[in-house]
Amino acid sequence: MAKRNIKLILEYDGSGYHGWQRQNRETTIQLLIEEKIRIMTKESVKLIASGRTDAGVHAFYHVCNFITSSQIDPPSFKRGLNALLPEDIFVKQAEDVPIDFHSMYDTESKTYEYRILNQEDPDVFLRLYSWHIPRHLDRDEMRKCLSLLCGEHDFSSFKSTGSGNLNPVRKMMRAEIHEPGKGLLHFIFEANGFLRHMVRNIVGTVVEVGQGKIGFNDFVAIFQAGDRAKAGIKAPPQGLFLIDVRYPGM
Amino acid sequence: MAKRNIKLILEYDGSGYHGWQRQNRETTIQLLIEEKIRIMTKESVKLIASGRTDAGVHAFYHVCNFITSSQIDPPSFKRGLNALLPEDIFVKQAEDVPIDFHSMYDTESKTYEYRILNQEDPDVFLRLYSWHIPRHLDRDEMRKCLSLLCGEHDFSSFKSTGSGNLNPVRKMMRAEIHEPGKGLLHFIFEANGFLRHMVRNIVGTVVEVGQGKIGFNDFVAIFQAGDRAKAGIKAPPQGLFLIDVRYPGM
Repeated sequence: MAKRNIKLILEYDGSGYHGWQRQNRETTIQLLIEEKIRIMTKESVKLIASGRTDAGVHAFYHVCNFITSSQIDPPSFKRGLNALLPEDIFVKQAEDVPIDFHSMYDTESKTYEYRILNQEDPDVFLRLYSWHIPRHLDRDEMRKCLSLLCGEHDFSSFKSTGSGNLNPVRKMMRAEIHEPGKGLLHFIFEANGFLRHMVRNIVGTVVEVGQGKIGFNDFVAIFQAGDRAKAGIKAPPQGLFLIDVRYPGM
Repeated sequence: MAKRNIKLILEYDGSGYHGWQRQNRETTIQLLIEEKIRIMTKESVKLIASGRTDAGVHAFYHVCNFITSSQIDPPSFKRGLNALLPEDIFVKQAEDVPIDFHSMYDTESKTYEYRILNQEDPDVFLRLYSWHIPRHLDRDEMRKCLSLLCGEHDFSSFKSTGSGNLNPVRKMMRAEIHEPGKGLLHFIFEANGFLRHMVRNIVGTVVEVGQGKIGFNDFVAIFQAGDRAKAGIKAPPQGLFLIDVRYPGM
């Protein structure tokens, strides 16, 4: 039987999961979807993903793919998986792609959004979808920090301490703050790749500048030091959303 | 010690609770708050509420009050209760009110919002906060139904079958549909009081008109019949939000 390569576009609420990646004994999103594909295809498949999200992190647009010999057409994959998956994971699209498409290696850019609720009172409906910071944040100072990040840089200062010896150079295309109202701040980051916890480490450090705990010059020094130990705190996971993944010519 | 009457304005996500009212062995919002007040005041208090919400129903603005001999000032009640309560319940305000204020009997009007997501695909982030209806709903036909409801009427057709012999006449001041975009329909109902499940029964029946399952004339007949058995289905709880409670001169 000819092999096919199926690409899935997913949306999920990460609140109830131990992140994307397969782990022992923990319920992960990857594990659940692989299990449902196995039910549909009678094959054991391995999902390749555009990236991994940590526990509590969400996705409006996550891309993954798998190789199968199944004859099931893409709309039936979408319908069938959505019937089998719990309500907090949704397959927005399924499609046949070239057999050599790889949702991780072929990525052109990924975009993350980090949501902060910056007002005195919390919002019970946003507790799983934002980081509540009661104290006022200085938007101008934070924007100055973000403007430094665009372009090709060594992001070692913002990588997780346990993230190994990967090349720490990434190209950042966008680093912006949007203010949609109601006390919300949406940080948007688009880059050709992200180091582990990079968005959360950047946001945590930029917030310290916004609070006046450290100055803009300190931020510059932290960024240039290339040393994670010098940077600020890691922002909590529930404010983070993967919102786009782009591939060349797709 | 002089008795005081404390009014609380609450916000809560009802997803994790068996509704507002105290029940045996079930976790209800009333029970939790009474317990936290007892911890603060060392008194056993009875919370009086502007109304009861069912399991899964939410509130942006719920009013309750309790009588106490405690000397704790209102800001300390707000701060203390919020420190003790879980993150899905929030006390927005606490204030001293006249000793004879009663949050249920003194109500001038209450406003409910019912949220429907009317698009083919569901939204994982709205699954606990809306009713997903994939099939297109005819807004004009639904608005015709709602316009009938304003004014003083016998709402027996939309009361829950087990709701007893309360006077079924209520005065509806507003019955509207708002369209904030992204496939959302927000039904707004303001009345001087609501029968049990009245909003959900109205929405369920109006949706049947919107889907073309029954016609506008059928809706008129159902409303006039005064018989719950003739009406449509009851809309699910998770789309319902209590959004305002008004008192004369407050």
